Parts: sequence; C-alpha cells; structure tokens
Amino acid sequence: MSLASLSASVTAIAQGVRDGEAAVFAAARQSLAAIARQEPAIRAWSHVLPVAALERMEPERHAAGALAGVPIGIKDVIDVADMPTGFGAPALTAGKAAFDACSVGMLRAAGAIPVGKTVTAEFAFRTPGPTRNPHALAHTPGGSSSGSAAAVAAGMVPAALGTQTGGSMIRPAAYCGVVGFKPSVGRVFRDGMKLTCESLDTIGWYANSVADAQAIADVLVGGVDSDGAEKRRLTIAVQLGNPKAGLCAESRAEIERARAVLAAHEVQCVTVEAENETALLLQAHDVIMHYEFARSLAPVLERQGHALSEALRQAVAHGLAIGAGQYQEMREVQAALRHGWGALYGGADLVLTPSTPAPAPHGLEHTGDASYNKIWSVLGWPCLHLPTGFSRTGLPLGMQLVGNLGEDLALLAAGRKLHHLLKQQGE
Amino acid sequence: MSLASLSASVTAIAQGVRDGEAAVFAAARQSLAAIARQEPAIRAWSHVLPVAALERMEPERHAAGALAGVPIGIKDVIDVADMPTGFGAPALTAGKAAFDACSVGMLRAAGAIPVGKTVTAEFAFRTPGPTRNPHALAHTPGGSSSGSAAAVAAGMVPAALGTQTGGSMIRPAAYCGVVGFKPSVGRVFRDGMKLTCESLDTIGWYANSVADAQAIADVLVGGVDSDGAEKRRLTIAVQLGNPKAGLCAESRAEIERARAVLAAHEVQCVTVEAENETALLLQAHDVIMHYEFARSLAPVLERQGHALSEALRQAVAHGLAIGAGQYQEMREVQAALRHGWGALYGGADLVLTPSTPAPAPHGLEHTGDASYNKIWSVLGWPCLHLPTGFSRTGLPLGMQLVGNLGEDLALLAAGRKLHHLLKQQGE
Repeated sequence: MSLASLSASVTAIAQGVRDGEAAVFAAARQSLAAIARQEPAIRAWSHVLPVAALERMEPERHAAGALAGVPIGIKDVIDVADMPTGFGAPALTAGKAAFDACSVGMLRAAGAIPVGKTVTAEFAFRTPGPTRNPHALAHTPGGSSSGSAAAVAAGMVPAALGTQTGGSMIRPAAYCGVVGFKPSVGRVFRDGMKLTCESLDTIGWYANSVADAQAIADVLVGGVDSDGAEKRRLTIAVQLGNPKAGLCAESRAEIERARAVLAAHEVQCVTVEAENETALLLQAHDVIMHYEFARSLAPVLERQGHALSEALRQAVAHGLAIGAGQYQEMREVQAALRHGWGALYGGADLVLTPSTPAPAPHGLEHTGDASYNKIWSVLGWPCLHLPTGFSRTGLPLGMQLVGNLGEDLALLAAGRKLHHLLKQQGE
Repeated sequence: MSLASLSASVTAIAQGVRDGEAAVFAAARQSLAAIARQEPAIRAWSHVLPVAALERMEPERHAAGALAGVPIGIKDVIDVADMPTGFGAPALTAGKAAFDACSVGMLRAAGAIPVGKTVTAEFAFRTPGPTRNPHALAHTPGGSSSGSAAAVAAGMVPAALGTQTGGSMIRPAAYCGVVGFKPSVGRVFRDGMKLTCESLDTIGWYANSVADAQAIADVLVGGVDSDGAEKRRLTIAVQLGNPKAGLCAESRAEIERARAVLAAHEVQCVTVEAENETALLLQAHDVIMHYEFARSLAPVLERQGHALSEALRQAVAHGLAIGAGQYQEMREVQAALRHGWGALYGGADLVLTPSTPAPAPHGLEHTGDASYNKIWSVLGWPCLHLPTGFSRTGLPLGMQLVGNLGEDLALLAAGRKLHHLLKQQGE
C-alpha cells in the first residue's frame, strides 16, 4: 500500500501503528507536510500544530487504540489543549484552551493526534472564512465546517471534526466530496465546544470512507443500536421535495440514478413528499436557531462587538426580538416531530434525500444553501453524506442518508453497504 | 419596608430600582457589605466583585428589566466575564472568563448584577469546599451548590445560580432552608458552564420565596407551559419510599403534617410507591453520571491531575471502565421513563416527596445523601424545594414538589400557592 493511500485511511493508519509497521507519528508528519504544501491554496487551517510540538509528544500514548497515530483536524469552535480557540472571528481576543474538549479527549485517548484547528465560519454561523474548495478554488467549500471538509478533501488529514446547527456538516461534505456524518443530537458530548444553539448543535466528522467514519463513531458514539443493521432487504424513503430549494438537474439526475441502482440491487424505494412537515420544520429551525444563537452570542457582542461581523450582529438583534412564547411553541413542534419517524417514514429503514440543491456555487462570500439540512438538524436525526460522483464541470455530487433518532450505528452500517453500490465507476 | 427585607427580595429590589425609589447599585452594595461581614464564618464565595469594579459599572444598564439592580451569586462552574472560573479545585490553574455564560448574560440583560462566584464542590461532584451551613456552622450546607445555597440562606444575596447533576440544587436548598428550583433538563441554556454530565446537568437557582424563583424563571425559562396553573383543585402524588434512603422521623412527620394541611385545603393526595422504578432510576443515574463525568473530566485529569482530589480521580477511573453498551442501555431506560409521567403519576398534577432523608448532617467532610434527588435528575423533571419549618435542633425542614417534563412554570405557580399553606407558623 502506498504512503499516499495509507495517509488517507483512518483504519489503515491505526492498523499500521498497532502492528508496528509504521512509526507512531509517521502519519502525523505526513499530515503536517501536506498541510504546509497545500495550505497556501486551500486555507483550511486557523492553527497548525508545530512540528516541534509533535516531536515532544510521547509516542506510547498514541501507539494503541482504535485511532492509533491518526492525525485529525478539529473545527475551531471546539477546544484543543494548548491551541487557541478562535471561533472564526479573527479580530476576537482568543486565549489558548487549558483542556481538550470532551470529544477531543476521547479521540486522543483512542490514539488520535489533533494536528490543528480548522477554519470555521464566524461562530459556526454564516460569515465564511478564507477556505477554498479543493475541487475548484473559486468555489465555496460550504460552511460552517469549511476547513474540516476541505482539509479532508485535499488529503491534509484523513479525518476532521465539524459541527452542525443548520447545514454545517453535510453541506461542506457535499461541496467538497467527502463522507460526512452528523450523529443524533445529544449522542456526542459537547463539553468544551461553543454551544451557539444548544438544542441543535451536534458534533460530527469527515473522512474518506464510511468505514473510517464508523471507526470514529466507535470511539465517540459507541454502544449498539437496537435496530438490526444486518437486515437483508432495505426499504428506503426517497424525499426529493423541499419548498425552499430548487433541486438542480444534475443533482436530481444523480438521485434518480441512485434509485435505479438500488432497485437493481433489491432495495425497495418509496417516494415520500412531506411538504407540510418540511415547511413546518424549516420554520421551527429558523425560530429556534435565531432565538438560541442570539442568547449565546449576546455576551460576546457585549464585550467584543467590534470583533464581530455586521451579519452576526444583525442575527443577534433578530434573535433577541423573538419572544419566549414563540420559541417554546416551536420547541414543542420540534419535540413532537423528533419522535415522529413512524408517522412519516414508518415503512422505511432510511431516508435518501439530496444533501444540497446543487454542487458548490461559485464564489467565496457565502457558504451555500442549507435547506436540505435544516430539517434534519431540527429533528436531531443522524445524517450521512455519501459522495457518489462529479458534475460535468468536475464538482462533487452526492446525497445523504438519514436515520431515525439514535440509530446512528445502523445508519453507518447501511451507508457503508450502499456507498459501494452508489459510487459512480471510477469514483 | 426595611432595608433588610428589601435586600432579601428579588422582586422588591427590582421594583424599587425601576420606580426610582432605590439607587441602581444600592442592593449590590448591601450585598457586598453583607458578604464582607459574614464570609469569614460562612465561606460561601470563591471570588467576590471588588467594590471598585461595581463603581465602574454603568447604572443605566441595570436600571430596567425584571431583575433591575438585583445582586446575584453564580456557582463557580459557570463563567462570569472577568472573574476566574475555579470549578471548586483550588490547585487548578484557572483563567478569567472572557465572556459571561449564556445564563449569566440573560440575567445581566434583565438588570441583574453578578456580585461573585460561589463555592462549589470540586467540579460539581462530591469533594466539598469550605462552606458552612448558616443555620449550624458545624453542619454541611449540602453540595455541590454549597456556596449559592448558603449565601442566600445567610442573606448575602437574594438569589444565586447553582447546578444539579445528582442532588446539587435541591439538597443544599433543603439543608440551608431556602427555596431551590431545578428546571427541566434542557430548559436553561448551558453555554459557558462546565458540562460534566451532559444528559443530566441542569442550571437552577436559590431564592427566599417562590415568587422570587418565578421572577428568575421568567428571565431564564420563559414561555408559557401548556398545563393550566389556574386549576382549582390539585391532586398530588405523595411518594415517601426510597430503597436507598431511610427517611428520618422528623422529615417523615413534616411530610405527614403537609399531607394533613393539604387535605384540609381540598387538595387531594394519593400515595405512590414506585419502588421498582426508583431502583431502576438510581441504577441508571449511577451508570450515566459516572460514564459521562469520566469522559468530561479525563482531559482535566490528563493535564492537571495533581490538582484533583483522590476521590475525583477514582470516580473518573470507575466511569472510564463503564462500557458504551451498558451506558446506552441506561440511556434508553432514562429516555423511556422520562416520558413516563402518565404511567406512574397520570392522575396527579404534582409529586410531593422528601428533598433529603434528614436535615443537614453534622460535619463538613461530606455533602449528604442525594438519593431523593438523583431519581428526578435522571428523569430531567423540574423540582422545587419548599422550606417549611425547623427541626427540634433548629435545622431547616422542607420537601420538594416535582412536575412533569417541561411544566416548569406550572410547577412554580402551584408551588407558590402551596408554600403559603405548608409553611409552619412563624416561618
């Protein structure tokens, strides 16, 4: 196996280190070299581990475990000990974190090596950082987990943590053409990350394969889902519609191609519209996100308002004007629909739906359309983006699978099987 | 109204400031003076706002709002801008917080003035700080929100924030004889606090009356509960039993007295045992708390293990040994019972149950028994401690009311009416 492919696979790196076939820090050194080489073009990082700091680390602490020796990027709203947490707000006075976030500590305990902090949109919201799409430098990588998705897509790290509140995990995965996994809300501990919207914020990760995403889920999610992943014959609900997003012809054709492939492999597909529910969920997401975001960001605005963008300050003002009554009403909508899989998708095992209405748009001033993501974020259900091919202009195409609340491991297991079927030849 | 009583009432202070009858910082100055006077005996504070810092604050920012001019104490696991966050671990290298926690920001925006950080047991767990019980200095104030409960009981502040993971809000309320309110899990935003057990941790508060607790709930909880608080005839489920806690004679007699008073006021009381559920909930709490606590504290242990107690280090080791499968199983028990009000208490509006098995025990080396609290913490249901009288030796007696998930405001409304009935004469 070549070094290049080794460096791209979480499971291969860890296996090599555990078997003593690779030096503990070999993959991390490759990662730092790849970052040094590509960062001027991609700009995925807000802080990178100095090589000297890597040399000072104790190899025996990273020689065992499911992620032994695996270099990993951490979105810059999540603390890594001794690295500054910058929140994607360069003018903010940022201090070094004293301790790892809970999720980072769990990765490190499994052998992983955090090699840096990745660029995030300002406070994981809308205003983008400088990151470019590795597949087309003039196109957005998506946001808010821009740096994490781009760093994996560019081969700088085999995996990286991101977060999703609206579409911040799945949209960058789609635009950058990497596997992206957003677990069920509440399934990955959030201590040590900035909670901007507590009922929505979810830590997820990017990797080059579903198998690699599973390896990280084994560490951060754990447990065994009740749902049987071994089921022979799957039924999938295909949901194309979204009143706020016009699905482009190529993205629609890619889903139709997937549906034909699935049918040829004895997977039953049923069509679900859910137009009313989608409209209600988008409304609930808008109210809940702005209400919570405003109250979380107000203390930052109070002390360092000068360091924040006009867009963020406007969003806070908008959110503070939403009353608690309206917010609670939308929380009740959220709670009811969150447990409503049976009513809408009762006959199906998974939902197959676009990740974005179109491939990555041109321009770096916005992060794209999250309409296909917000509905699942407000439901808190697990989502898995599968890159499946490329557009005529060479931009990644793909789709997401969505599972019921808490069935994270079953979603990954099914996604792994389906990804092999759905990838275009040559992908 | 005397200054002393003014300084003890959240609503009276705010009303006085809004009406221009009191200077904006008058109550805060009284509070700082009371702290200076009483702190040597009580030791409730880990950091106090310097008087000079109060003088530099802008009065117009605290002159309006539901909590105008109200001094408040903040448990030292919750960030207050420019104050150190010490987590009850004096040997830990603690930095000043750059920003208020979300909850503190919301209080400040409503006019409140954080006057200091209150003593917490080490990382809101078991190892107590130096705080003494204002009713008997040789007795524990309870924990982990020791300083907040003692500061309110001693009249240093009219209100203070605490947190509950096991029994950390309600037990100190009971031992110190103040009103304590623990909202539904997820109802008060936790950004800016240390999440030691994400599925359990809940921010609550202490005050001298249910009306004052309601004033703070209006700011931090908001909204309107679906349940009608105006209901004329209440039914209350009285639940005495707890397999792990032997209820003392005086505490049992106080509940029986309450039951008789309620019956005389046309409140219907029914007895519920729930022995099996209680045992299962205590088991679930033990597994969930240790599993989550260990993973949240491991990064602290990794970097500054020398600063932590042996008890904490043992708890982390114990929790790290719990497998994800066992944890997920207990999370499923939790999820099922969390929505199980109807099955157990369907005919009742509220549960009335002891807050602790006995009044505050002698000694400062432990924080007392939380068996009567853990079951409600793992359920995430709102709890309200009502101080109702005193033991023969002069220690506070009381009891808690528990409501269904999300019915926080209804619980407070009912608790306010019932507290007037249940208080012993002279209380």
